[in-house]
Amino acid sequence: MVRRVLMPGRFQPFHNGHYSALRSLLEEYDEAVLAVGSAQEGFTCQNPFTAGERLEMIDALLRRDGLRNRVWLIPVPDIRMPLAWTTHVLAMAPRVEAVASGNPHVLYIYKWAGLKTIELKLHEPYRYNGSRIRSVMLEGGEWRSLVPDIIAEYIDSVNGVERVRKVCSSGVY
Amino acid sequence: MVRRVLMPGRFQPFHNGHYSALRSLLEEYDEAVLAVGSAQEGFTCQNPFTAGERLEMIDALLRRDGLRNRVWLIPVPDIRMPLAWTTHVLAMAPRVEAVASGNPHVLYIYKWAGLKTIELKLHEPYRYNGSRIRSVMLEGGEWRSLVPDIIAEYIDSVNGVERVRKVCSSGVY
Amino acid sequence: MVRRVLMPGRFQPFHNGHYSALRSLLEEYDEAVLAVGSAQEGFTCQNPFTAGERLEMIDALLRRDGLRNRVWLIPVPDIRMPLAWTTHVLAMAPRVEAVASGNPHVLYIYKWAGLKTIELKLHEPYRYNGSRIRSVMLEGGEWRSLVPDIIAEYIDSVNGVERVRKVCSSGVY
Amino acid sequence: MVRRVLMPGRFQPFHNGHYSALRSLLEEYDEAVLAVGSAQEGFTCQNPFTAGERLEMIDALLRRDGLRNRVWLIPVPDIRMPLAWTTHVLAMAPRVEAVASGNPHVLYIYKWAGLKTIELKLHEPYRYNGSRIRSVMLEGGEWRSLVPDIIAEYIDSVNGVERVRKVCSSGVY
Amino acid sequence: MVRRVLMPGRFQPFHNGHYSALRSLLEEYDEAVLAVGSAQEGFTCQNPFTAGERLEMIDALLRRDGLRNRVWLIPVPDIRMPLAWTTHVLAMAPRVEAVASGNPHVLYIYKWAGLKTIELKLHEPYRYNGSRIRSVMLEGGEWRSLVPDIIAEYIDSVNGVERVRKVCSSGVY
Amino acid sequence: MVRRVLMPGRFQPFHNGHYSALRSLLEEYDEAVLAVGSAQEGFTCQNPFTAGERLEMIDALLRRDGLRNRVWLIPVPDIRMPLAWTTHVLAMAPRVEAVASGNPHVLYIYKWAGLKTIELKLHEPYRYNGSRIRSVMLEGGEWRSLVPDIIAEYIDSVNGVERVRKVCSSGVY
Repeated sequence: MVRRVLMPGRFQPFHNGHYSALRSLLEEYDEAVLAVGSAQEGFTCQNPFTAGERLEMIDALLRRDGLRNRVWLIPVPDIRMPLAWTTHVLAMAPRVEAVASGNPHVLYIYKWAGLKTIELKLHEPYRYNGSRIRSVMLEGGEWRSLVPDIIAEYIDSVNGVERVRKVCSSGVY
Repeated sequence: MVRRVLMPGRFQPFHNGHYSALRSLLEEYDEAVLAVGSAQEGFTCQNPFTAGERLEMIDALLRRDGLRNRVWLIPVPDIRMPLAWTTHVLAMAPRVEAVASGNPHVLYIYKWAGLKTIELKLHEPYRYNGSRIRSVMLEGGEWRSLVPDIIAEYIDSVNGVERVRKVCSSGVY
Repeated sequence: MVRRVLMPGRFQPFHNGHYSALRSLLEEYDEAVLAVGSAQEGFTCQNPFTAGERLEMIDALLRRDGLRNRVWLIPVPDIRMPLAWTTHVLAMAPRVEAVASGNPHVLYIYKWAGLKTIELKLHEPYRYNGSRIRSVMLEGGEWRSLVPDIIAEYIDSVNGVERVRKVCSSGVY
Repeated sequence: MVRRVLMPGRFQPFHNGHYSALRSLLEEYDEAVLAVGSAQEGFTCQNPFTAGERLEMIDALLRRDGLRNRVWLIPVPDIRMPLAWTTHVLAMAPRVEAVASGNPHVLYIYKWAGLKTIELKLHEPYRYNGSRIRSVMLEGGEWRSLVPDIIAEYIDSVNGVERVRKVCSSGVY
Repeated sequence: MVRRVLMPGRFQPFHNGHYSALRSLLEEYDEAVLAVGSAQEGFTCQNPFTAGERLEMIDALLRRDGLRNRVWLIPVPDIRMPLAWTTHVLAMAPRVEAVASGNPHVLYIYKWAGLKTIELKLHEPYRYNGSRIRSVMLEGGEWRSLVPDIIAEYIDSVNGVERVRKVCSSGVY
Repeated sequence: MVRRVLMPGRFQPFHNGHYSALRSLLEEYDEAVLAVGSAQEGFTCQNPFTAGERLEMIDALLRRDGLRNRVWLIPVPDIRMPLAWTTHVLAMAPRVEAVASGNPHVLYIYKWAGLKTIELKLHEPYRYNGSRIRSVMLEGGEWRSLVPDIIAEYIDSVNGVERVRKVCSSGVY
């Protein structure tokens, strides 16, 4: 029986903290399922990259590192029902044994739903953090060192920084 | 610790089969939670009574029989996500130990979601069956004996039979 | 004819202000219907308690004070359509004569929808206020005097304060 | 004060029965509001025409007959909540005095919601009926006489009959 | 072939900036389609006017200026799926050639969806801006000069300023 | 630039017709994206297998045949908006050049949305057809020859035939 773990996130973008957590989960489990949340979003300030783009960037990284066949990429649109969301994700994913997260809300709801939960020890969470990385992009800071280099290349190929700046300008319309 | 069991249904209308199942569950459990499904519907052929009306009719029956303080009435609108619906219901109900149903789909999904399930042995399911009772109403047959008398009175008080006939006429518009 | 009034709220948690308003409504009406809003939420910073928990805590209070058979507890999930929400709630509740609220938005939309509305004179609204009570919990202040004691006991029984602190920590993931 | 009446329908397609009802309403009211339902649908067997196309075809007819400035065309997507749908439509329409329909369900729910309802006396409802007209199209019968000629021209301009045949073939995939 | 352009907005309220953009589009296109967004909202701080009211106020302006027969008013409820929203709007509108907006997010997503986009050069966007106009109303400032006078009259006729003040007071309930 | 094609379906279950179409698409394209529709369903008569199970069964087949790294498996829940569904799927998938289908509705809507469409020449569509295969299962017929053998093994491992029989029995509750 394949042992799998679920790791939900929005991955805006997928950064070193995510990758470090994923690799440590793959030391214990045969496979990981990345549930790519808010999959219906894209080109917004909080979710600048579409789910399709997020799948493509993570796929490029995993292929390069020979991990592609141990990781499932599952886009999951929001349903605005935080508790029912637990089974909504499970319904669309291959069967998992446990859920891993650094987010207390996610840990609580999956525990409430009866699943085994794993609290991720995040590596420098203040530094490796999607919201902060988007802020650094917005302010013209050095964001490339915060994500795997192949992810940085992908973001450049879609003019990601310019996009973040435009969609995060306060709308005047 | 109060021991509770969940019994989902649409209760269009609440009939003798439902009541018999409910009473037998109350022999084993302290309390039962009736999840009144398709709560957003009403005045349609499949769901002629609003959730509010269904709550009122069941409440009248339970008060008469002294069971009102052992039964919770929880309206649950459809979410069109059959698997996530399991936790959607659980989120809105007081904590239950098990789910009881005569519907194989309901038993399967709650088992899938990790809950204890109880297969209800329905009493004459062909006879006591919401869909059939509505057909009998439509055809002018004897439906009053199929529901508790206080339920029949309630249905009469809202002109339920005339309503079923009108909303089940094939729409010509 | 039973005279009923609707009182919508999120009740996160149910506090002295809510209870005072409820009791004053029960002086004029035979029954009150508490529409427990945002029922699909739980374990979030704004809605730490699930609807099931909110029902349980209010039920415990009402049973103790002999009011359980005059109050209906109706969980109502958000539908993100503020105007249609009026009839959404009415569809799931036993028939009411009027809607009571201290929230101008709620009063406006029910008036727009044609219902009789009652503006609640809230008792010390700055003090008795769900959002403020959760802040007090977060900051380790004295929150127990702001809710009925049986509600405080319930919150303790589910480690509510710890929960509020965890889900309101700014997520770093 | 402008006196307006609401007339909901799917108008798949807009036929002589609809037009006759609309004109008789315009004898009594200053303006009519056509709520074009199931607006999110199109290219399906039950809803072959998009809402945009339905607006265009009705607009062409009304302009020709000098009625365009007395009729509002409001597309309304389904919300799968038949009772809340009443206020959902009213929220998106200019203020109306009454709702007119030949459909018992629509009359019931708007009466439930507190509006004045008008039962339309439909002209030969068996003959002028969207579902039947689509069947006639499917079977290669004479459908052009059942709709205003300018509507027939519009349907031809989008290859409507071929479309109905393709999307109503039982899917083999 | 009629040449049409789509102009989406919330129009809370419709102001001089909107009207100036609309008129300049009508210099190039035969017709414009105003997609009135967040159509399910009303009586909230961010969306004080219902879609029906917004349609009425824009209609009054266009009738006065003889533009009513060149502009379509299409209410569009939010679907909380920013990318799918592109085709959601297109499905409900008469066929358009291009989409015009001053909002970078809207321009991005329609370009992503394959449409021709037109970046509106807004006239004094800081000044003519719905959010700012509502703030001015809230603070008792001079807002009437920021909207066409017939729009100001309409807002007065529904006590719009008082409404904005009430629904934007921080809720105490 | 990787050339990709989208192939939507419900895959209940994935059968020889699907596989034959997929392999012929892989002769022309570098990669295919299977959009696994109705992903929120499972344990129902029309959708007996969860999306997670469908992903697992297709994955097993593709791994065995060395095609796993050329095919993306994307679960897509229904949104009940057939036209907006086009961009909903595209938002969650890696960028594709074209959409392939044997279903006229799917071809029409993607053409409407501006995409290149490919009409699949299905191999014996009457025989290889999800609905028919589920009927054969229900009636105890020979269904194993209609799906790849590894898919048949997967279905057996989850007691799929018994499941189809139970959830397709007409509900008596």
